[in-house]
Amino acid sequence: MSVASCLPLPHVGVKAGHLTPKDTDGTYPSKIDISSGVPARKLPVVQPKSVPRGTASFEVMRASLLDAFDSKVPLDYHLPRELIENPPTDVSGIPASCGILSRDEIEITESYDAVALVAALAEQKYTAVAVTTAFCKRAIIAHQLTCCLTSWFMDEAIAQAKELDEYMAQNGKPIGPLHGLPISIKEHIAIRGTSSSHGYFGGMALDDMDSEMVAILRSQGAVFYCKTNQPQSIMHLESDSHWGRTLNPFNIHLSSGGSTGGEAALIAMKGSVIGVGTDIGGSIRGPSAFCGIYGFKPTSNILPMRGFSRGTFPGELNVLAATGPMGRSLRDMDFFMRSILSAKPHLTNPELIPYPWSSIEAPLVRPLRIGIINNDGFIVPQPPVKRALSWAKALLSDPKYGDLVEIKNLKVLGAAEAWDKVRLMYWPDGGQLTTDAITSTGEPVHPLTRSICQTAEPLGMQNAGSISVMRDQRDNFRHAFAKSWTDQDVDIVIGPAFVGPASAHDTAFYWTYTSLYNLVDYPGAVVPTPIKAELGESYDSNYVPLSDACQHVKELWETGNFEGAPINLQIVARRYHDSELFRALNVLKDILNLA
Amino acid sequence: MSVASCLPLPHVGVKAGHLTPKDTDGTYPSKIDISSGVPARKLPVVQPKSVPRGTASFEVMRASLLDAFDSKVPLDYHLPRELIENPPTDVSGIPASCGILSRDEIEITESYDAVALVAALAEQKYTAVAVTTAFCKRAIIAHQLTCCLTSWFMDEAIAQAKELDEYMAQNGKPIGPLHGLPISIKEHIAIRGTSSSHGYFGGMALDDMDSEMVAILRSQGAVFYCKTNQPQSIMHLESDSHWGRTLNPFNIHLSSGGSTGGEAALIAMKGSVIGVGTDIGGSIRGPSAFCGIYGFKPTSNILPMRGFSRGTFPGELNVLAATGPMGRSLRDMDFFMRSILSAKPHLTNPELIPYPWSSIEAPLVRPLRIGIINNDGFIVPQPPVKRALSWAKALLSDPKYGDLVEIKNLKVLGAAEAWDKVRLMYWPDGGQLTTDAITSTGEPVHPLTRSICQTAEPLGMQNAGSISVMRDQRDNFRHAFAKSWTDQDVDIVIGPAFVGPASAHDTAFYWTYTSLYNLVDYPGAVVPTPIKAELGESYDSNYVPLSDACQHVKELWETGNFEGAPINLQIVARRYHDSELFRALNVLKDILNLA
Repeated sequence: MSVASCLPLPHVGVKAGHLTPKDTDGTYPSKIDISSGVPARKLPVVQPKSVPRGTASFEVMRASLLDAFDSKVPLDYHLPRELIENPPTDVSGIPASCGILSRDEIEITESYDAVALVAALAEQKYTAVAVTTAFCKRAIIAHQLTCCLTSWFMDEAIAQAKELDEYMAQNGKPIGPLHGLPISIKEHIAIRGTSSSHGYFGGMALDDMDSEMVAILRSQGAVFYCKTNQPQSIMHLESDSHWGRTLNPFNIHLSSGGSTGGEAALIAMKGSVIGVGTDIGGSIRGPSAFCGIYGFKPTSNILPMRGFSRGTFPGELNVLAATGPMGRSLRDMDFFMRSILSAKPHLTNPELIPYPWSSIEAPLVRPLRIGIINNDGFIVPQPPVKRALSWAKALLSDPKYGDLVEIKNLKVLGAAEAWDKVRLMYWPDGGQLTTDAITSTGEPVHPLTRSICQTAEPLGMQNAGSISVMRDQRDNFRHAFAKSWTDQDVDIVIGPAFVGPASAHDTAFYWTYTSLYNLVDYPGAVVPTPIKAELGESYDSNYVPLSDACQHVKELWETGNFEGAPINLQIVARRYHDSELFRALNVLKDILNLA
Repeated sequence: MSVASCLPLPHVGVKAGHLTPKDTDGTYPSKIDISSGVPARKLPVVQPKSVPRGTASFEVMRASLLDAFDSKVPLDYHLPRELIENPPTDVSGIPASCGILSRDEIEITESYDAVALVAALAEQKYTAVAVTTAFCKRAIIAHQLTCCLTSWFMDEAIAQAKELDEYMAQNGKPIGPLHGLPISIKEHIAIRGTSSSHGYFGGMALDDMDSEMVAILRSQGAVFYCKTNQPQSIMHLESDSHWGRTLNPFNIHLSSGGSTGGEAALIAMKGSVIGVGTDIGGSIRGPSAFCGIYGFKPTSNILPMRGFSRGTFPGELNVLAATGPMGRSLRDMDFFMRSILSAKPHLTNPELIPYPWSSIEAPLVRPLRIGIINNDGFIVPQPPVKRALSWAKALLSDPKYGDLVEIKNLKVLGAAEAWDKVRLMYWPDGGQLTTDAITSTGEPVHPLTRSICQTAEPLGMQNAGSISVMRDQRDNFRHAFAKSWTDQDVDIVIGPAFVGPASAHDTAFYWTYTSLYNLVDYPGAVVPTPIKAELGESYDSNYVPLSDACQHVKELWETGNFEGAPINLQIVARRYHDSELFRALNVLKDILNLA
């Protein structure tokens, strides 16, 4: 989809001729199970909580779409219906145990990060076809358990891999630094020949060109095989779209997060080794944290987003999105950044700044001054997050690291104010363009879509004057925020990635710990800890709510069951200090035992 | 003035207590000459064409403002009234011949560029007081001849210079790289203790803080002594404000250009050695070209503009202004950039990108590929500009420079389209906020203010949706424009700085040759040539107008008298290639005999 064709409003309706295959009798299938009102899918997927239903005509269109997806999946890759109907809470072990994957395929999908896998491909330990096959199979298994995919195109991926194997056979060397590496892609990012959407049915379209990022990855040898689920509107923190609801692999009653939640679930299920997301409020960091993987949101305009189906989202008048990697290790995120920037995308894309990516090995000139966020002054994080912070603080306080790090508690400036401001800035149209585009096909507005719009909705459509005032407020906040770091003398900051572990479905209301860094446009990485949510953890007896939101978060904790959900922490540096952040992460790697 | 207090609309009315001194009897002066209707000024200035008159009450306020300015100027520095009333067309020689400046003061103000003057100060050839005195005197002489100033504060400047001399006496070394260098500043840029405006009376205010740029310059030893005139609204290319109309020193019937036209006239009169301007459509490059000096507009967000009285100008939602130096030599512009960037302003100002400024001496890796613009496909430049292009082309084509440069004709992409787009983008409010602020005090809207608003005016106030569409159009244009350079394989481009030499008053309608590079945000420098407009030059006999605008520009040439007006050329590089541009300029310096 070209950017020009991505206006949320006018491009409503799927190109049925492309996306909906005709039945053998030449008619379009219409497989609604009238008794239950639920479409009977050819490829059943686990859905403990369905997404809201729309009008009958919408549900017919949606069923056709799902049917087209399902029809591509060979029966050999179907999990037993019995398992889908009675899944365990933790589905993360099923891909390895279900018998669909060979021993080699389990090894390929489990034993490597991207850097190691590329090395194995380069030394011809595996063919590109073998690696692609393994990830295609594992991805479609993962999908049946978590509803993480929106496109799956194994045939095209194998064809691409074959070409790479032929290149290797003829030339005896990889075609590029990513030779044969399968990379999964968030749905709204254009890959030629596949469809993309904004997380709702209206405006779906086939893309005839790769987005700039995908083109760079492809030219470096990456293989594309699937696209992944995202929230309705791509503007909230759980991935429930017209494709269904993505589940947390470690607890299917929790969300995988959003907006890049399909990626996070897929990578946690080891159906992908590395993927590409986007983040305007926490959409890389939130789901990565929910699913216990690595994720990095750069400063805006460092990596190319040209050709992503962003359309003309008015929220970006004042808050810019960024794209970045999600994966299994710090070095994979560094590898991704280096690979893309080695293509010098700023030479052809004038939106990008020239960004010199220095080696993460560069020595520090002095101990890292690390600010620790215990809470942001607005919402006290739930107990396991506090436990993860204590874990990190204990390790960092070890005197043997005294030459490397200096830690201090950081007071966060204006978290509540930032949350109020950023929610208005996301919707200078009052959310109207988006909700109109959603409902135009009979699709219902999902609860979290409604929730994130509701602050701006009463204000309606903003004009040039008021949007300028917002920008002024944004810049004033940014200056004050930068000064607060300078005054507290910190290089990087470690804190929560979210108010708790993964949210129970439809309850990810507060992304304050991530959206703050979109408002100020700071780069942030989330990293796994060994901490997992446990049963019976409770708030401190002397807890006093910092705000109504804080009280609500406590209630969500006390009424939920988060057992087994992983806890990540977020590490942030100043705007444009992306490369410095990675040098710092390289120091923390040994102290915090990161991958 | 804090940024927050710069909203164009609500802050109407001058703080009379600060700006209007009471007469000795305790009343406010009211010196309107009732017979002529023109205020009788204590310090007469040459004004061959007055700015439009407002309401009686506005003219009373304005007269008070001018009176406050005039009252500060010692009688010793007044030029003879006879000269003011009967000025020659070319007033550029008067400062040296009028007898007000000593031989030393003439030498100080004429014999150095900023780099050389700083060196002379550092080796104590001159005191800071001597240098400051010379420039203060010459500036106020220049003002009487060209109406270039809006503030003149010799006493404060001398006090500042005295402190620097004391520092030098005590420490035996300069306080910083700019020790004792007088720098003139465009009126809307805040200097603590002085007033600023948007080129109209409403919203004038005293500033209690230095803007960030001024603070850096001050910390490095610069001395501030005056502020300079700009257009009403700062949004057109001639400097006619409530302070009067700035004249071209070489032909007072021509404009000095705008919006940094006061600077350009002052520097051309050698009343300043280096000054600071801003540019959102040509406001550094246009006036520098009109007055035959050097000027450089960087890519946006490389130099700090925090604290400039930009307020919330909605045009900057899609077109960003940039600040930059104006002066006497290429090396001064390089020196200015290096000085500011050495303060690492991006560490405290999160709007700025970290920009490594490399040495202009760095060798080229291959011959410079230079595109020459003969015309932009929209407006054929007037005869002397064509002559200057031929002059440059002849020098660059000399075979002895074959290893250094490779020249080719460049076809400019979309100049007419860019002009249409950028005029809409400047005024997403339809110009309403600005014209309301102007007229709220009884000030009339000047012809060129009206002219630049008139495309956007009928569209009125834009909303979030339509402003987003504009941004999308902007980005699409930027991508296509960058591609056109890549396809034509050029590193830098040389072309006109304006459609002709300096415009006759109230006729600078077409800034297409500069605003194009604001739309795409490319850095551009203008450099003087030895070419000057001559009497009797005419268009080619085979001239065919490229557009109505092109025809109009021909008529303006044929009905005007531009004799003696200097001609500059503009040299442009890609976005963020500012440092590369200076390396290229260093190569061109010898070929084009630049200072």
